[in-house]
Amino acid sequence: MRVLISELKENELSKISGFIETIRDTKYMIFIMLKDRTGKIQVSIEKSSNPELVKQLEGVLANSVVSFTGKMVLSEYVKQGGKEFLPDSLEILSTAEALPIDDTASIDTRMDYRWLDLRSEKNNLMLKVQSAFVAGMRGYLLDNDFTEIHTPKIIATASESGSEVFEVKYFDRKAYLAQSPQFYKQMAMASGIERMFEIAPAFRAENSNTNRHATEFTSFDLEFSYIESFQDVMDMEENVLIAGLSHVKELYGEKIKELFGIDVVIPTKPFPRIKLDDLYQSLKKRYNYQIPEHDIGDMNAEAEKLTSRYALEEYGHEFIFITDFKKTKRAFYHMRENDIPQGYDLIWRGTEITTGAQREHRYEILKRQALEKGLGSDVEFYLEFFKYGCPPHGGFAIGIDRLTMLLLGLPSLKEEMFLFRGPSRLTP
Amino acid sequence: MRVLISELKENELSKISGFIETIRDTKYMIFIMLKDRTGKIQVSIEKSSNPELVKQLEGVLANSVVSFTGKMVLSEYVKQGGKEFLPDSLEILSTAEALPIDDTASIDTRMDYRWLDLRSEKNNLMLKVQSAFVAGMRGYLLDNDFTEIHTPKIIATASESGSEVFEVKYFDRKAYLAQSPQFYKQMAMASGIERMFEIAPAFRAENSNTNRHATEFTSFDLEFSYIESFQDVMDMEENVLIAGLSHVKELYGEKIKELFGIDVVIPTKPFPRIKLDDLYQSLKKRYNYQIPEHDIGDMNAEAEKLTSRYALEEYGHEFIFITDFKKTKRAFYHMRENDIPQGYDLIWRGTEITTGAQREHRYEILKRQALEKGLGSDVEFYLEFFKYGCPPHGGFAIGIDRLTMLLLGLPSLKEEMFLFRGPSRLTP
Repeated sequence: MRVLISELKENELSKISGFIETIRDTKYMIFIMLKDRTGKIQVSIEKSSNPELVKQLEGVLANSVVSFTGKMVLSEYVKQGGKEFLPDSLEILSTAEALPIDDTASIDTRMDYRWLDLRSEKNNLMLKVQSAFVAGMRGYLLDNDFTEIHTPKIIATASESGSEVFEVKYFDRKAYLAQSPQFYKQMAMASGIERMFEIAPAFRAENSNTNRHATEFTSFDLEFSYIESFQDVMDMEENVLIAGLSHVKELYGEKIKELFGIDVVIPTKPFPRIKLDDLYQSLKKRYNYQIPEHDIGDMNAEAEKLTSRYALEEYGHEFIFITDFKKTKRAFYHMRENDIPQGYDLIWRGTEITTGAQREHRYEILKRQALEKGLGSDVEFYLEFFKYGCPPHGGFAIGIDRLTMLLLGLPSLKEEMFLFRGPSRLTP
Repeated sequence: MRVLISELKENELSKISGFIETIRDTKYMIFIMLKDRTGKIQVSIEKSSNPELVKQLEGVLANSVVSFTGKMVLSEYVKQGGKEFLPDSLEILSTAEALPIDDTASIDTRMDYRWLDLRSEKNNLMLKVQSAFVAGMRGYLLDNDFTEIHTPKIIATASESGSEVFEVKYFDRKAYLAQSPQFYKQMAMASGIERMFEIAPAFRAENSNTNRHATEFTSFDLEFSYIESFQDVMDMEENVLIAGLSHVKELYGEKIKELFGIDVVIPTKPFPRIKLDDLYQSLKKRYNYQIPEHDIGDMNAEAEKLTSRYALEEYGHEFIFITDFKKTKRAFYHMRENDIPQGYDLIWRGTEITTGAQREHRYEILKRQALEKGLGSDVEFYLEFFKYGCPPHGGFAIGIDRLTMLLLGLPSLKEEMFLFRGPSRLTP
């Protein structure tokens, strides 16, 4: 039975398995740094007394995968936690060729060999952090009576808007890949599910190359019924994010500090909430920033950055909700009150991470709002969901890749995703 | 603040919200059965003393969504748990048209209006049961150091085989939808993740209409490193399924018994394991069943049914693992020992629910096995994953829709999935 490196006990006969991180052949000794998912240990082989092992290791390169059987001993001469492993026997599980990339490789070359790139301690931690972040958020929802639903990704019409969807050859007809589960989340509300969430891929055929966009990403979506207003949606999002960040901090807070130099901050409730026009005024007054004419009623990348700075300076908070956008800048399905969309954006560390809203659940009004945006037959099937009774409801979506990217201070989604997909990137 | 129907306290002023299941207008009284996610209650309105409510309810049909404010009282005359609700006021949240379908509708008509079909108590429970099943299985993995990974669904080559994949128009080139995360699960092993799982859509362009196949379904996949043999994979699957079923039984065991008449059975460990040739002999001896020539080395639907019967009669067990398939009937990436694939199928209630295996992780052997199956350039990118060191590993996949279908004894995936997708079914 294999023993994990972090669980080795002194002087106990054990088998350890992992990747050879480095191998150093000196006159009298061979030193191997062996790495498993829990840590590393130096394996020290005295050549004269282990001729068999020496022979087996001939030609074995770093990155090969091996098992050693032997004993861990404490040693004051060893840096790696004062422990070393003295093996009696060795099994070579997989031999590695010399790596095609090194530390100086560009991000695009590293992506060609992403499975090697992901072996680094930082990248391995990054994947665990994302898993824990999502587990924390999901756990909160399951504890609060949410049901996990899986909605279809192949859809019959190009949804929301005609642009930016991928076309699929579906037997003898055309189909499309869902940009978001928005319509089906709402269908679940019309089905009486009351509270649902989904974690699934979303697809965007945007032919643009930015750090914040991928053609495929993982969306964390939820929707819930019987809200009083979109303030309830913001309250929910606060709780979900706090649960996620708390879980990350609990499991990996120290490790993140050590490897990324970043503190995981658990935000306090409530997050600051500001109306868009008030925000414009504050940004003008404080930073002499004037929103450009064509962005009025909406945000842009520069305004998002300044807004984060404002939230920190004014409220001492990493998060800030912006409300009261202009209706022409928001989706037709956002509920409106006095013509103001009942929704919000959430900004974190200079970037928008969510759009949330109360949805319009009344058939006639919803239909009117769809027509007003020029949406016709593509949304007809969706409007049907509201004809036979539907509770008031709202929800939001978070891109979990962007979330992890911001948490760990990574420069790009390419660095963050297990495998990034962009207009010119489909491999491996 | 809304109070859930199951949490109403006697004589306490409360607001309840839900769908009107039925509305009955008698000479002196209006009786409404109101339903929320926790249950139902009769709302009783004495007409003479509530003229305002009577007026508001004029023309309001069943399936409308309303809130009542008033008090719950105990009453010996009321069937529904001896409780009724006496309202003072009413808010109509959403009005329903008369439903376009009734209980006599065919499954295909019901699917046209799936959001109405899902409102039934049984279907609402079914979605919760699937959510709980997955939560239980996932919880086991998270507790055992597995990392949740999200692999891309848009891929550059038609993977595993040339057939049965959907083609995507990806800007100016062709791409495909992933049939399974198999290759990327294994990439994660080469990345040193050691233990990963994924719950995500999988796509199959099979132009066949059976009860057990959909063109899109949700796959529960896992892969883990440093196994000794595929017996470890079966052990893992036993633990995962037991965790899932235990969670379902704990949350919904009684309700499932009540609505579906089915006992949730927690299987005992180990599940019976039988070699294919021994199984053939037993089926022959016991049921005089002879596997047809073209299926030799493999299973078919009839053999699966008989195998379940055999497992129950011989071992008193609902589950049975079948091992030692013929190599021509198994994927090229299954490890072989003495030419026998080191994998298995798992049968439950007459149906195959999993294929699992130890994978071949040694580059040269894997390459040879791929070539032997006639696989060339399409798998080249995948073979690369094994060139630079990769631990021994194995894993399996379960279709969670099929799992829930079998658990609840449903006749078809159409009845089970939130929204079924088949060759002739893309809506809603």
